[in-house]
Amino acid sequence: MKLHCFGESGNAYKAALTLTLAEEPWEVAFVNFFKGATRTPEYRALNVMGEVPVLEDGDTVLTQSAVIQDYISSKTGKLGGKSAAERREVLRWMFFDNHKVSGVAGSLRFNMNFLPEEKRNAEVNDFLAMRLASALKVMETHLGSQKWLAGDEITIADIACCGYLFYPEHFTFDRQHYPNIDTWLDAIADQPGWKHPYDLMPRALGAVE
Amino acid sequence: MKLHCFGESGNAYKAALTLTLAEEPWEVAFVNFFKGATRTPEYRALNVMGEVPVLEDGDTVLTQSAVIQDYISSKTGKLGGKSAAERREVLRWMFFDNHKVSGVAGSLRFNMNFLPEEKRNAEVNDFLAMRLASALKVMETHLGSQKWLAGDEITIADIACCGYLFYPEHFTFDRQHYPNIDTWLDAIADQPGWKHPYDLMPRALGAVE
Repeated sequence: MKLHCFGESGNAYKAALTLTLAEEPWEVAFVNFFKGATRTPEYRALNVMGEVPVLEDGDTVLTQSAVIQDYISSKTGKLGGKSAAERREVLRWMFFDNHKVSGVAGSLRFNMNFLPEEKRNAEVNDFLAMRLASALKVMETHLGSQKWLAGDEITIADIACCGYLFYPEHFTFDRQHYPNIDTWLDAIADQPGWKHPYDLMPRALGAVE
Repeated sequence: MKLHCFGESGNAYKAALTLTLAEEPWEVAFVNFFKGATRTPEYRALNVMGEVPVLEDGDTVLTQSAVIQDYISSKTGKLGGKSAAERREVLRWMFFDNHKVSGVAGSLRFNMNFLPEEKRNAEVNDFLAMRLASALKVMETHLGSQKWLAGDEITIADIACCGYLFYPEHFTFDRQHYPNIDTWLDAIADQPGWKHPYDLMPRALGAVE
């Protein structure tokens, strides 16, 4: 399987980490995002949404990190929950992640770190930081009563919700303010084969054309 | 089945419209959102995420509109796509919706219409409007080559992505700027049993306690 990705993308990390923890062999198709690679007609033909990641598995082309995660989980029988009810619980946290966690953390981290200084807007970032803190508080509460987000083992829900939380760039998230999330991130990092996003995928910033 | 909802919630509308178009009987459990109903300990016990909608079907309690939609579709065998590939395509547009369409439209419409004047922030709203326009452009392009978002029949993907687009309040979305979306919304409204959100669920604004 081939994953179109770059190191800075937390959404790509979710797919890459799912492949890795499911012990599926995969190769990188590097996307030079900051040079406009996702805005080309060729890339839009691959993915009308213009986003990273894209997974190619033979003739199957998949986009949206959660769909890729679900596909890998279905294909390998790993990381997906053990019953219909558990799979719905997995899906529930994946949608929460896309809507409220990664959907906000991704924008905020981009705005605070990768936008040129003159385009950064403190009011927009304050709004996003408030939204992110609210979503993280929900996760913190939930992880106070269980080790993993859905069920009693790590699933693709955990891999989705942690997508942006291992990155070193400052985007107002501080593990010390969320002790349950902190413990949970350590438990994810303890999984056999786990790697940090920048060790799993090549970085686009500083990449040579 | 009982749906915790209120008329102004586009996310609740997705669940309510899915129930309706799948011809499943359901009843309303009204949530008086603007009076803080989702912030009570009782509601948080029902849904740690503190969100609307919540679906109760006997002992099964589901949250996240997309999970509810998926559940109704699985239970009735309707609106879910006809193959594994089509179901992945359905899921892809539902995640795109949660992340980029409804996730943004919901905040923007709330900020522009339901927040007190003094709390409205033009810079935040400009940012959200730009993000929404970008997502709608992706849908507009995609709907230029097919009638429905996923497959050749209406699915829960269409019902998800239209969740906020029938509302009358101004939130920068104008159907005239998106002719393919305009045609697609008409096709949704032509479905037998279709109702406008304010005809399907009781409104919270103006509701008597």
